Amino acid sequence: MVRKETFEVRTKMGGTGIGEAYVYDIVKKEDLRGHGRLYAKIVLPPGSTIGWHQHKGETEPYYILSGEGDFTDTDGSVTKVHAGDICTIEVNGYHALENNGTEDLALIALIYNE
Amino acid sequence: MVRKETFEVRTKMGGTGIGEAYVYDIVKKEDLRGHGRLYAKIVLPPGSTIGWHQHKGETEPYYILSGEGDFTDTDGSVTKVHAGDICTIEVNGYHALENNGTEDLALIALIYNE
Repeated sequence: MVRKETFEVRTKMGGTGIGEAYVYDIVKKEDLRGHGRLYAKIVLPPGSTIGWHQHKGETEPYYILSGEGDFTDTDGSVTKVHAGDICTIEVNGYHALENNGTEDLALIALIYNE
Repeated sequence: MVRKETFEVRTKMGGTGIGEAYVYDIVKKEDLRGHGRLYAKIVLPPGSTIGWHQHKGETEPYYILSGEGDFTDTDGSVTKVHAGDICTIEVNGYHALENNGTEDLALIALIYNE
């Protein structure tokens, strides 16, 4: 089956995120068959952030599609990220992402279980 | 951890695919923790295809990033797909994808278990 993506506007991404985020579900939670809970494209406009948050019992790689931003890792280190970067964390790790650039920052997020 | 994507050139995608495909691993099989076996961006140049193949005991949604092509579903129906289209199949389903356009066809593929 082929369907068109749809998005929801969300705020407070990661609990403390700033601004709006556009979340395009690729596979809904109920169709991930218990392996995880999110598989989506996320678009952060300039100034928007995903707040620092933990993934207990799960992990969430980000795959950057376009734009640039600052990725904060479990250890607090900050790395400038661009298209083609893969931001991983360990199970139970923490992360955050800030679009401090001038273009939309688009990424694919997949949350899956330990 | 942030790492840069890398790719492998593959042929005979899906067993009978035509031409070359560029496969950029997002998460390697061993890091999918038993939930699946592929999470990658795939780029099909014009003329390249992923051959008709089955996913026994698993499923594989395609998320189209750019370009256009023909997606063949389990029932043999063919749908023209573009950026933002999500091509799903049921567990044990079949699919194929053909880039018969003039630009690269880029997609995200995730193979996960039933």
